[in-house]
Amino acid sequence: MNRHTPRIRDVARVAGVSTATVSRALSKPEVVSAATLEAVRAAVQATGYTINQSARNLRQRRTMGVVALVPNLANPFFSRIMAGVSAVLAPAGYNLLVVDTQGPGVERHIARTLDRSRADGLLVFDGTLPADDLLPDRQSPPVVMVCEWIEGLATPTIRVDNAAGARLAMAHLAGLGHRQIGHLLGPEGNVLAQARAQGARAALAERGLPVREDWFFPGDFSLESGRRGACEWIARPDRPTAVFCASDEIACGFIGEVQRRGLRVPKDVSVVGFDNIELVAHITPALTTICQPRRAIGEAAAKVIIALMEGDAAPGGHKVLPLELIERDSTSSPRN
Amino acid sequence: MNRHTPRIRDVARVAGVSTATVSRALSKPEVVSAATLEAVRAAVQATGYTINQSARNLRQRRTMGVVALVPNLANPFFSRIMAGVSAVLAPAGYNLLVVDTQGPGVERHIARTLDRSRADGLLVFDGTLPADDLLPDRQSPPVVMVCEWIEGLATPTIRVDNAAGARLAMAHLAGLGHRQIGHLLGPEGNVLAQARAQGARAALAERGLPVREDWFFPGDFSLESGRRGACEWIARPDRPTAVFCASDEIACGFIGEVQRRGLRVPKDVSVVGFDNIELVAHITPALTTICQPRRAIGEAAAKVIIALMEGDAAPGGHKVLPLELIERDSTSSPRN
Repeated sequence: MNRHTPRIRDVARVAGVSTATVSRALSKPEVVSAATLEAVRAAVQATGYTINQSARNLRQRRTMGVVALVPNLANPFFSRIMAGVSAVLAPAGYNLLVVDTQGPGVERHIARTLDRSRADGLLVFDGTLPADDLLPDRQSPPVVMVCEWIEGLATPTIRVDNAAGARLAMAHLAGLGHRQIGHLLGPEGNVLAQARAQGARAALAERGLPVREDWFFPGDFSLESGRRGACEWIARPDRPTAVFCASDEIACGFIGEVQRRGLRVPKDVSVVGFDNIELVAHITPALTTICQPRRAIGEAAAKVIIALMEGDAAPGGHKVLPLELIERDSTSSPRN
Repeated sequence: MNRHTPRIRDVARVAGVSTATVSRALSKPEVVSAATLEAVRAAVQATGYTINQSARNLRQRRTMGVVALVPNLANPFFSRIMAGVSAVLAPAGYNLLVVDTQGPGVERHIARTLDRSRADGLLVFDGTLPADDLLPDRQSPPVVMVCEWIEGLATPTIRVDNAAGARLAMAHLAGLGHRQIGHLLGPEGNVLAQARAQGARAALAERGLPVREDWFFPGDFSLESGRRGACEWIARPDRPTAVFCASDEIACGFIGEVQRRGLRVPKDVSVVGFDNIELVAHITPALTTICQPRRAIGEAAAKVIIALMEGDAAPGGHKVLPLELIERDSTSSPRN
């Protein structure tokens, strides 16, 4: 990227406001105060920053590529979302390319992707990327956040209500008669993990059930963290009779270790996952889980990015898709 | 692609030889006969075909991107290979982008990728793509085939010995005392599936064990085909006591259905998979499988594509990496 081309952050610095405010002032002037609008307008002039829509459009269809930045290609959760994205992008003439944001050298890759000559649009599945890099800018392609989000960022976002999903899981377990329910957490600092944990705590508190922080076991969405969580669960003298896991991979690692130690699911512990990846219908016992509408998420994200790439400045903003609980064999009433 | 620029296939037609021979004559003139070399040289002149190495080099680092064409992003088999590819590409300054060749609009995508302005190099994991498109050409970036291959194509290939992997699986089952061994096949026409089936048949025949085509159940590497295979296995009056599955996903689908029907693994049937995806160590019973050195495959592929992108015309050709059997809990001696 050319460091001398004024970017939105230069405008923000000169105006003495946040980049998010600049973005709002330029896209929806009616939502900011007159004083702020004037400061931003003056800063735009002073820096030479321009949003040249026709130049944008001219360059727009140059690559015909949309890049998806995903935090972990190894997680099968993303595959069906990608199928939904492709199903909408392909008929519109766009290609989908996928990049793993956890790989080495990714910072450089993202910087390049944010140059419009590399991609016409960007689908960002990773809420830990620097917010400043994702603000709309004439140098960078339009961005849609998918699944994860960044607090305070006005970028259009397609996601599910993770807290509501956690409530579904807890309501199911409480409905079966469980009174001691634990949670195997996702990675610290991850917005999805935080929303699921918050929903889980709220659902327990509402029912007057104990919210025991020592039953909220650390994890990171991985199989291995599920296995470790099972070791911690087994080691406790006062084990919860049910565990809601923040991802299906955590649940698979948890169930595998519990069964290897000679305990039974659901007889000794009921387990609920989150995601409904394809494989969990085939494990024994088949996993009760929160189903994310992955194909619909992908399709919705593709529709919004196409609208943005084709010049619609405000194609609908945030969209929250519904979740449902799929009851299988890993949950039952508690023994005692 | 400009249809009027002479391509290697035009040279082949004029010289009256195959495109593979032209490729060999240009990259390793010492391995073809003097007469062939002369015919190819004359055809190169007649068609105006040129390999302009300095122009190649000038353009070479333009995108700094390597595109991996994979047949199914949803298959977790590819994720660790990609980690190995990235680990080598990133320090060399290249990005990795992944495209699913089974998605809609893929033909168009591949045609674009084969234009050097879109990618500096191509890693092809799909042996069903048209061979002609993958021949070296001054318009197209260098190509390395990974895992899958195309018969007769001289493109450098990194793979494992799939037939030898199948032999390991069969030797393990025969060593446990099984005399009635079946195979759940991969997709018809897939080179990996064919090599595994061929290795399985050869290993049975060598031991004087029955090679029963009605015990070679159709499949397609998917969970669902494993489930269907289990239904067929259960329905047979003369069930084989062990089944070697052409992929881990087939094995998971198979075991899931067998257990759902109230039969036991390995007591009623021993099962061996192929790939060693991460999840199969966590299912119950943990899966005995053939481990592919996925990270090493990715690293080797990245090294060869870098050598090609940086001007080494013949960086080593075909490479076959070793396989090993991981014994877990899904195999045991037969009951009777």
